[in-house]
Amino acid sequence: MVEYSQMLEEMKGVKSRVDRLLLEDILPKTHMIAEVELLYKMMRDYPERGGKGMRPFICVTSCRAFGGSEDEALLTASCLELFQNWILIHDDIEDGSELRRGAPALHKKYDWTLALNTGDALHGRMWQALLRNREILGVERTLDIMDEFARMINETTEGQQMELSWVVGKNWRLSEEDYYRMCTKKTSWYTVISPMRLGGIAAGADPQTLRSLIDAGTTLGVAFQIHDDVLNLSAGAKYGKQYADDLLEGKRTLILIRLLQVGTSEEKQRMVELFAMPREERKAHLDEILEMIERYKVLGFANERAANLLGQALSTLRTVRWPGDREAVSRLEEIARYSVERDW
Amino acid sequence: MVEYSQMLEEMKGVKSRVDRLLLEDILPKTHMIAEVELLYKMMRDYPERGGKGMRPFICVTSCRAFGGSEDEALLTASCLELFQNWILIHDDIEDGSELRRGAPALHKKYDWTLALNTGDALHGRMWQALLRNREILGVERTLDIMDEFARMINETTEGQQMELSWVVGKNWRLSEEDYYRMCTKKTSWYTVISPMRLGGIAAGADPQTLRSLIDAGTTLGVAFQIHDDVLNLSAGAKYGKQYADDLLEGKRTLILIRLLQVGTSEEKQRMVELFAMPREERKAHLDEILEMIERYKVLGFANERAANLLGQALSTLRTVRWPGDREAVSRLEEIARYSVERDW
Repeated sequence: MVEYSQMLEEMKGVKSRVDRLLLEDILPKTHMIAEVELLYKMMRDYPERGGKGMRPFICVTSCRAFGGSEDEALLTASCLELFQNWILIHDDIEDGSELRRGAPALHKKYDWTLALNTGDALHGRMWQALLRNREILGVERTLDIMDEFARMINETTEGQQMELSWVVGKNWRLSEEDYYRMCTKKTSWYTVISPMRLGGIAAGADPQTLRSLIDAGTTLGVAFQIHDDVLNLSAGAKYGKQYADDLLEGKRTLILIRLLQVGTSEEKQRMVELFAMPREERKAHLDEILEMIERYKVLGFANERAANLLGQALSTLRTVRWPGDREAVSRLEEIARYSVERDW
Repeated sequence: MVEYSQMLEEMKGVKSRVDRLLLEDILPKTHMIAEVELLYKMMRDYPERGGKGMRPFICVTSCRAFGGSEDEALLTASCLELFQNWILIHDDIEDGSELRRGAPALHKKYDWTLALNTGDALHGRMWQALLRNREILGVERTLDIMDEFARMINETTEGQQMELSWVVGKNWRLSEEDYYRMCTKKTSWYTVISPMRLGGIAAGADPQTLRSLIDAGTTLGVAFQIHDDVLNLSAGAKYGKQYADDLLEGKRTLILIRLLQVGTSEEKQRMVELFAMPREERKAHLDEILEMIERYKVLGFANERAANLLGQALSTLRTVRWPGDREAVSRLEEIARYSVERDW
């Protein structure tokens, strides 16, 4: 991805500064009580595994595009990483995921009850770290940033509830519209909308401008998630999750929703049957599902949807009033395109 | 408990005002998406089950004892209830608890993955509600209160990690001192220390006075937990948890730690054996454990320890400088005594 090389370099830079802040300053290392020190080790486990750092980069870049500096947004961006880490720990438990960032999920590496508690501990540390904005942005903006975090958590947990409920309730009567609504909550808010808005708040953007980011962020987040669903069925080892994990977990992706719409009634019947099986049993039938996806060219359909949504998001982004750094504004467009073209 | 009747009336009054605020104002009820509305229903489940409301009462009473009013502390007190509710949801999952407040635990009533997510959603709502203090107490005190909540979560999750690690690691080489350290973190902070300090912050108490509350709160919290451990083996239906649940869950209570100290080496051996069994198998041997507890009069020992700690806590409490309502100060002493004499 040569065209993104400079942007990716910058993203790496922000990620390394975020990591340093998290691992050297915010997250504790040692404690005289061995069990507490184990908690600290577990809290540091996901943050130490790397990752692209797209969300903190969006936050910092948005702050610059609104006329702020990286320094004003870096702590908040680090808290986005903390959010991502605790919610992934809990999601991995809920979804029964095996791998995360190329290594066993935390609840597979340690006892799952300890992993659950670690997620809660990390959640608390996130809010504690946000309080440090007091020294950087003053009291009012600190509270506004916390308000945005609260909204983001509300949306994300509601989206997660939708997705889990569909799996638990063996619900397949789902439209594309249902998928978009779920994705907006589960993915768009914490991946795009809030990172952009938080950058804006840190830079002092007005409420009307902040509202104008919701539309673009929503569409872009859904496009990102569709692309992620496609990657889960096509990406290589770099991707870090188990291949076709989504199928094993029974996730209601756009791909499966589409397949149920275009398949024959026998095929639909068979799909419902396959997804009623326990995970391990379904594992033996993955090829059957993959063959249907191939035959109906569903990945092509999903790619097309993602590309359309990206187009919409880019034109909405262009209507936003960005008073800051022009280079940062074009970086945001690049991240937008990258997020639906990336190969991991 | 005639001597506590007036205090218990007041506690009931605060609890009903806390409940109204939580159920009528803070926690949402309806949503156009059915799955999200189910999340709301699940979030309201534990808060709707009642409970004594001791922690919010301590918070409100402490605020009055520091010269503040109930109005200044009620929102914060309600957030303590929210904290208690989300952490109980997660603890019940981690401990495999069957009952909570006389009804099936949330993860037994609904799918456990949905219950886990509900805990996270409630955790987020707690922080969001804390932001409302902005209108009541101003920005500075709002942030100070959040800082105390962060500390409280750190301590509680560290204590929970200690207790879980002992169970997971089949660790029985524990001293009374280990138990006190675990209890201070797991129970004292969120039950006594932070409720008192939060009342103080709401009333504008100075940092030195706030620090002076830590000692008394620590001892009282441990006394409360010891009494709770005793109740788990002696209380009736009103208690709301399953009888001897602690033994089923393999919790390292002072009672068991003592038993391991006073028993013969054969008895110790047998105890370790019994607690290495899976929960259901151990269920058949409860009488054997209860008989040893009876024979060595361990409940009497635990009651004595709790009474001593209460005495210490009361004399430390008397050294605190309380600039406010004298009646509130004596109420705090009553709550202290009640917390280790209550029968549910």
